[in-house]
Amino acid sequence: MAGRINLEDRESPLCAAAQHVCEWWTLLILQDAFDGYTRFDQFKENLGVSSSMLTTRLKALVDDGLLERRPYQTNPVRHEYVLTELGRSLWPVIMALTAWGNSRLAPEERRMVVVEAATGEEIDPVVVDASTGRRLDDSDAYVFAAGPAAGEAMRARYRHRGRGAAQASPQEN
Amino acid sequence: MAGRINLEDRESPLCAAAQHVCEWWTLLILQDAFDGYTRFDQFKENLGVSSSMLTTRLKALVDDGLLERRPYQTNPVRHEYVLTELGRSLWPVIMALTAWGNSRLAPEERRMVVVEAATGEEIDPVVVDASTGRRLDDSDAYVFAAGPAAGEAMRARYRHRGRGAAQASPQEN
Repeated sequence: MAGRINLEDRESPLCAAAQHVCEWWTLLILQDAFDGYTRFDQFKENLGVSSSMLTTRLKALVDDGLLERRPYQTNPVRHEYVLTELGRSLWPVIMALTAWGNSRLAPEERRMVVVEAATGEEIDPVVVDASTGRRLDDSDAYVFAAGPAAGEAMRARYRHRGRGAAQASPQEN
Repeated sequence: MAGRINLEDRESPLCAAAQHVCEWWTLLILQDAFDGYTRFDQFKENLGVSSSMLTTRLKALVDDGLLERRPYQTNPVRHEYVLTELGRSLWPVIMALTAWGNSRLAPEERRMVVVEAATGEEIDPVVVDASTGRRLDDSDAYVFAAGPAAGEAMRARYRHRGRGAAQASPQEN
């Protein structure tokens, strides 16, 4: 779980979240990309990793469709890495992770925050239901259920949930 | 990046997200825990991993403060694993990840969804600013900035951002 670098030194609440649930390096490269960095040397300086490690990691993000590798000069050919539409669509998730990392700190202890670009005003990312606006913090009130394409296993797991089903915990099964 | 199991077989949009940004097994254990499973054998059956691998992974989650290990019987002593308050606070993040995974599918292709427990009605998790209710999908409109406890490096990186600062991309530095 712990990264190969000292995550405590990196100041980002994303790292605190990443240390618990995610691959730290993916989130840090994505943070750089969202901050507007595009070049190998910029990523390398910001992340403090070896060229070979960074090459492997950028390739994984390109293979996953989150970054696009494209030439920005021809002689010699050099490439930059920019977020794809799929990569950009991770932004809300990354802000939710950032807010989670910061939620464990006193306000004055936070080293990185999210602001509105136009005004510099800090914002507070929370997860809500799009249609009602209600916050989804309560894991008893909002639960997973089988979707339209669920297979047998998923349907069995969640057979007490979803439209028309009474709620039950798995222990009652 | 790819897990040691075939993530495509696991039906969960969390896996699609995990495959890109996260450690799949952490999220799957957390999903089990949020679904109410608490016992080693339940996790083992649901995840299809070896006992030794599961032991290591549960220990990491306990060490990270996301799960608590506590005895539920005494002769012989057996333990269960329950979410801590810190673990429960990841629920909104996990729903945002779920929604991201599902966003890449047609509605009828989704195998797992989030519903209101009381009604079974499907909900649509989105990330908004708590005070204004505005959606934070646009990574140009909402950006990272240095927080109150930022060190020199963080302040330098984001010196054009935040309260009272004009926005600039890193390329302009």
